[in-house]
Amino acid sequence: MKIITISREFGSGGRELGKRLSDSMGLPYYDREIITAIAQKNSLDENYVESALEKGVIGSMPLTFGRTFTFAPVMPYDTTSLLIEQQKVVKKLAQKGDCIIVGRNADVILEQYNPLKIFVYADMDAKLKRCMERSKEEEPLKPQDMQKKIKQIDKARSNHHAMLAKTPWGNKAGYHLCINTTGLEIKNLASVVADYANFWFHEGEQE
Amino acid sequence: MKIITISREFGSGGRELGKRLSDSMGLPYYDREIITAIAQKNSLDENYVESALEKGVIGSMPLTFGRTFTFAPVMPYDTTSLLIEQQKVVKKLAQKGDCIIVGRNADVILEQYNPLKIFVYADMDAKLKRCMERSKEEEPLKPQDMQKKIKQIDKARSNHHAMLAKTPWGNKAGYHLCINTTGLEIKNLASVVADYANFWFHEGEQE
Repeated sequence: MKIITISREFGSGGRELGKRLSDSMGLPYYDREIITAIAQKNSLDENYVESALEKGVIGSMPLTFGRTFTFAPVMPYDTTSLLIEQQKVVKKLAQKGDCIIVGRNADVILEQYNPLKIFVYADMDAKLKRCMERSKEEEPLKPQDMQKKIKQIDKARSNHHAMLAKTPWGNKAGYHLCINTTGLEIKNLASVVADYANFWFHEGEQE
Repeated sequence: MKIITISREFGSGGRELGKRLSDSMGLPYYDREIITAIAQKNSLDENYVESALEKGVIGSMPLTFGRTFTFAPVMPYDTTSLLIEQQKVVKKLAQKGDCIIVGRNADVILEQYNPLKIFVYADMDAKLKRCMERSKEEEPLKPQDMQKKIKQIDKARSNHHAMLAKTPWGNKAGYHLCINTTGLEIKNLASVVADYANFWFHEGEQE
């Protein structure tokens, strides 16, 4: 079974890497499908689901929690419930076979399949540049606000991850390969990472 | 200029990766040469130099220090002096041209050449296994003593690094690629890492 999970800092190009890996390796890629499935199953708006999962548990959860915590009074579709839904959807997708999943805590949720766990990161300047270029098309943000947004989203990712795993989000010990994309074109990077992935799965079969 | 620095956890196979990369990329590899040069220049025994640089500054330095610290009374060839000698030797070697250097804080010392900075690590079990196999030929250690040795050597590496750099040793932010060698044969790994290195240098030339 070949599953690749891509965890990534916001703005580091991890999502694009996932898509391009999917093209070059011929593996299905799941990203928006996961949001859509959760939204449909719970008759919720996709944008609401995406935003709740992105902005994180802060607000509906006690501010400080480790692996054990007491639930604050739970609203029907608060972030925690959505995270649990997300786990179910990710597991179902993996049961279909080989795939690439970006984010969604898939590295932890799919541990049993021994996925190739990749973490993608970059220097803040590089992330800011990528995000500013992208935001031209959407709502334009000032660089300092964009930097705040980058940190906020990564903080939420880190918090969500902490609910499921002991190794902190972004700590290299939890991954097989950590790639700094600073100064790299993702479209060129994808082909060397595909080679690395093929090598890695091949080595696993030799054991 | 193509310089590759390989920082590594003890027992993760980083040194072997450096040697094999050197073979497959046709770049000179410096490791023992650095110890030899320091020893010759200061009329010291090579084993003494190696051991002092490996065991670290603990003993000749105050126990707690950050980036600024006061020197304890300095012995003629204490670890600190040797670390300074090492910096000079590493810089001289880099001036000769393209090369691969394992350890020796080369990632920090050679920053100006924009080297490809690789960090090699592995799960403790994998490192222990590799070290135990190697130690059969040398002095046999009990696994618990070997684990202690692994931690001790990495602690010294971390301390030496902290004297020169703000980003902690082993923190992915300080590297371009972090490779978990758990379950991998280094000889097979070397060829995909060589491909990655060639890609990375090529991207750098495009900027």
